[in-house]
Amino acid sequence: MSNLELARMVMERIEALGRISEEPDRLTRTFCSHAMRKANDQVAAWMRDAGMTVAEDAIGNVIGRYPGRDERAKTFCLGSHLDTVRAAGKFDGPLGVLTAIACVQHLHEQKLRLPFAVEVIGFADEEGVRYQTTYLGSKAMAGKFNERDLKRLDSKGVTMAEAIREFGGDPDNLNRARRDPQQLIGYAEVHIEQGPVLEKKHQPLGVVTAIAGQTRIQARFIGQAGHAGTTPMALRHDALACASEFILAVETYAKTHADLVATVGQIEALPGAGNVIPGEVNLSLDVRHAMDAPRQQACAQLLEAAHRISAQRELAINWQVAHDVPSVPCSRDLSAVLAKAARQHLVEVTELPSGAGHDAAIMGDITPVAMLFVRCKGGISHHPNESATVEDVAVAIAVMNDFLQLLANQRPFSGKKHA
Amino acid sequence: MSNLELARMVMERIEALGRISEEPDRLTRTFCSHAMRKANDQVAAWMRDAGMTVAEDAIGNVIGRYPGRDERAKTFCLGSHLDTVRAAGKFDGPLGVLTAIACVQHLHEQKLRLPFAVEVIGFADEEGVRYQTTYLGSKAMAGKFNERDLKRLDSKGVTMAEAIREFGGDPDNLNRARRDPQQLIGYAEVHIEQGPVLEKKHQPLGVVTAIAGQTRIQARFIGQAGHAGTTPMALRHDALACASEFILAVETYAKTHADLVATVGQIEALPGAGNVIPGEVNLSLDVRHAMDAPRQQACAQLLEAAHRISAQRELAINWQVAHDVPSVPCSRDLSAVLAKAARQHLVEVTELPSGAGHDAAIMGDITPVAMLFVRCKGGISHHPNESATVEDVAVAIAVMNDFLQLLANQRPFSGKKHA
Repeated sequence: MSNLELARMVMERIEALGRISEEPDRLTRTFCSHAMRKANDQVAAWMRDAGMTVAEDAIGNVIGRYPGRDERAKTFCLGSHLDTVRAAGKFDGPLGVLTAIACVQHLHEQKLRLPFAVEVIGFADEEGVRYQTTYLGSKAMAGKFNERDLKRLDSKGVTMAEAIREFGGDPDNLNRARRDPQQLIGYAEVHIEQGPVLEKKHQPLGVVTAIAGQTRIQARFIGQAGHAGTTPMALRHDALACASEFILAVETYAKTHADLVATVGQIEALPGAGNVIPGEVNLSLDVRHAMDAPRQQACAQLLEAAHRISAQRELAINWQVAHDVPSVPCSRDLSAVLAKAARQHLVEVTELPSGAGHDAAIMGDITPVAMLFVRCKGGISHHPNESATVEDVAVAIAVMNDFLQLLANQRPFSGKKHA
Repeated sequence: MSNLELARMVMERIEALGRISEEPDRLTRTFCSHAMRKANDQVAAWMRDAGMTVAEDAIGNVIGRYPGRDERAKTFCLGSHLDTVRAAGKFDGPLGVLTAIACVQHLHEQKLRLPFAVEVIGFADEEGVRYQTTYLGSKAMAGKFNERDLKRLDSKGVTMAEAIREFGGDPDNLNRARRDPQQLIGYAEVHIEQGPVLEKKHQPLGVVTAIAGQTRIQARFIGQAGHAGTTPMALRHDALACASEFILAVETYAKTHADLVATVGQIEALPGAGNVIPGEVNLSLDVRHAMDAPRQQACAQLLEAAHRISAQRELAINWQVAHDVPSVPCSRDLSAVLAKAARQHLVEVTELPSGAGHDAAIMGDITPVAMLFVRCKGGISHHPNESATVEDVAVAIAVMNDFLQLLANQRPFSGKKHA
């Protein structure tokens, strides 16, 4: 099949997977659900059609293997996740699994064997909807799974261990899902961008430089509530006015520091009555950058700004770092090969960081990783309107085919971690 | 009794009324409740002790009458409300009724008759908690009661008409509660300030110039939601950043326009997730001024600011005026007499507008009104911590006694409405 025919097949399969949901009128497919069972079985069938042998590991990742020329050859992994958020789009996750299957099908149709085995992984959990914890599939593979998570309960009181067992996995032997880094050459993931950069640049694809680190902060501004009619402006300690000044300081800081994004997404003003001056405001702050140092500096400077603004207004603040995840750089070697493959199809190759987390961020712990972003309409993701064009998907398949060929040609591949 | 003894009596009675509640652990006394029944009966007993004849009108206002020298004399009214908000303080309302009774008791003890009758009114509803509509008591008296309100239901499904009937009122003949403006000389109300101005100025009392007009606006800022990690700062249309700029514009405008207060008390950012750029923000805006023109100008200018800020950020806005109440100026004549009485006890007489609404605002429709504010601790109101000192209450009683004497001496009183 041509790349465009393979892309049409991928788009049909994306539609088919998009109908496999645990909710009637929207796409929701969570870890170890009945919908995931159906999705894994469907994906396994497509893998077999593409010439792969298929297995599921102890946590429920579905893995198709296309052997290399030599039985003892190391393995290069492709993939993404098959679970979704609630009311999801169809592309986030499945695009990476289905383009990977298309690449293997391309090899299989041409009866091509590479000097390494290719595995396609459909990760069982990346979004973390059911158990409020992300990357279960890739964490098990990377040996980073936290055994205590097995006791977590879903909203119906089912433990994670029970859910894995019912799904057909083996919660008592999750270490069997762990991969030996010595046997891996690398991991590459195709994913929709989930942002507007490629669309703005009129580029179908982009090579990811790093998966951004993220700091999440809960900040609380404590002023003084008062009657909105009887408290003169000069005597107020309005927590919402103070928070507003801080929110604008966050925006200004991020706008003036390249590649940094900072967002206040949640805000609550108390007591929350139209005729009462807010005495307290709670807000969330999300700070991301492809490199750790600028992110850490931003957090320190924004804390200082919060202190300065609050002090001027005679308010108190509370600042809690709720979450702090370092950035994961993509492998320079692998990304260079990916960019070379992309240049065979595009005049210009855009490099960009990933602001969202991906399975590649976890796989980066055990093997070099690379990511290829596909332009998505309006930058919309985690929403039924999420979409990508068949033409862009065809270019992505072409680039990934060439990427595997270039890798094959440059053996012995160094496999240097985080090079 | 001396003024201090009268003030002690008032404080004891405030405590006693504070225990008459429809909730076990906090003070809540709503329109036509059993607690109101007990409160009215208790207040009626105190009125009789002070030499008054007592009646309840068709809506449940309790009215004590102390006759003038001449049976055909006109009437001067004193009073405030006996209902409370939920989890109320003890002073808001009762202070005005109980100081009025103390003044009449003072006349009665001295066997003094004035050239006019004095009536003390305990209004049945000012806060509007039970039926979500304020000033029921004074509206019935002023002939401004809306008959359709009788069909309103409380949280238990009881209509207002049923509640009034059960209380002992006459919902079919509420017009009987209406007062003939020709028979009234004026209305004066003592009330806690519910704000911090007098405390800041170290003044026990203040003469109110006007009851501020109020505009309540619901504003909606419509931007574009997006992924907090993948949407660069330059491509955002963040509704919360936009709203923050507006909130600071509101604050700056109010701070630079004398006697204006403007408050954003409620805010909601949607979708409200830490990792999503807010696509929409809804907020409340409350604007008050003792005069109508500056308030109206403020609203117009703030709408312009909202448009300008939104346009710069390419957001849309929606602006709904939910509530618009003109200011009620206090009578210059009555207030001059009140200030003269105050000067007999204070070196300096503070004049200030009332940012909150009061029964006097409605009574102003049928007769000249004046108000005397009593300093309250920390400006706190609508809260169990609401408090005033016995010393300040003693000065208030002294001023009101003198006020009635000065009025009596200057007969024939002009009675010019809104002079």
